[in-house]
Amino acid sequence: MAGTSGDSKRFRSILERSARLIFQHGFEATSMQEIAEACGLTKAGLYHHIRTKESLLVAIMNYGLDLFEETVLDPVRTILDPLERLRQTMARNVTLVTQDSSKEVTIILHEDRTLTGSARKEINARKKRYVRFLEATFREAIERQQIRSVDPTIATYSFLGTVHWVYKWYRPSGRLSSEQLSNGMVEMFFEGLMP
Amino acid sequence: MAGTSGDSKRFRSILERSARLIFQHGFEATSMQEIAEACGLTKAGLYHHIRTKESLLVAIMNYGLDLFEETVLDPVRTILDPLERLRQTMARNVTLVTQDSSKEVTIILHEDRTLTGSARKEINARKKRYVRFLEATFREAIERQQIRSVDPTIATYSFLGTVHWVYKWYRPSGRLSSEQLSNGMVEMFFEGLMP
Repeated sequence: MAGTSGDSKRFRSILERSARLIFQHGFEATSMQEIAEACGLTKAGLYHHIRTKESLLVAIMNYGLDLFEETVLDPVRTILDPLERLRQTMARNVTLVTQDSSKEVTIILHEDRTLTGSARKEINARKKRYVRFLEATFREAIERQQIRSVDPTIATYSFLGTVHWVYKWYRPSGRLSSEQLSNGMVEMFFEGLMP
Repeated sequence: MAGTSGDSKRFRSILERSARLIFQHGFEATSMQEIAEACGLTKAGLYHHIRTKESLLVAIMNYGLDLFEETVLDPVRTILDPLERLRQTMARNVTLVTQDSSKEVTIILHEDRTLTGSARKEINARKKRYVRFLEATFREAIERQQIRSVDPTIATYSFLGTVHWVYKWYRPSGRLSSEQLSNGMVEMFFEGLMP
């Protein structure tokens, strides 16, 4: 959709601004006119970058997943020790969801039921990869007796719930810094799984 | 809003049906006409029960909170042992969010950013009571040295994330029964907090 790489910084800024608006008011309640204004564009200018409101949402979600893979998943894949891989995945994911710049882009991934058809399937398949990665890594850590023999599915969704719930309540201006939160969650979750 | 107690069963059914619709399509995208149809009412008939769409949403949320307090919070308040109080709270809350009959009513509580003004304040105050109850109970369990000395706020939101994320992924038709899930989560979470 961003035709050239020169456009791509501009395009990312459009995605971030529209994500903020959609997060605040809901997808249905946000018009393309409002999105254009928030981006400092005319409506025609916005349509130069994106064809429809639904394709804008798909682009935001794919951007959120790119960002997640770049900053969370890719750097941990090469960690050989499964427990250390899990700990670093949680720490990085908590950091991602507490960062102001990309927060809304990430949140929209978990809030939306608006997508339909092939777009929905595509996004769900990308999300599902994270679930499978966690389940496999929990299983590996159990086999190596690094953690107790818990149900890998329950462990995976407890992990995801702990991490993703953060955006519902965490305020950077509060008592806990992003780092304290991330360390505290990792410590609590994984100390608790020691055999 | 339900004038007499004879109306109240009818009214609860309206709240459950509209919650399902709002959950599926989003608050903004759901019209009062569609809600009326889903309830087997004319639009005028629906307006006999409820004045505006926003007051319908407030009524759904208050009903969700009533249900939560009745089935989760009230029965555990009298448990003297703080660790046992926490365990039973989690078990009951997981059961509530996996129950098909009341699922959407409960979910809407955690999904919506549509409320404004005094309605928003009222609902948030009711939700905040649960957070305070959990923080206080974690603190009590730490003081009695029943659990490790974790941060009560991080423990509280890890608890809430674990429990509330369930509706995002759990399917009653899957491998885990509601009871297995609830037992597994309680065991994993609280065994992990042992000193």
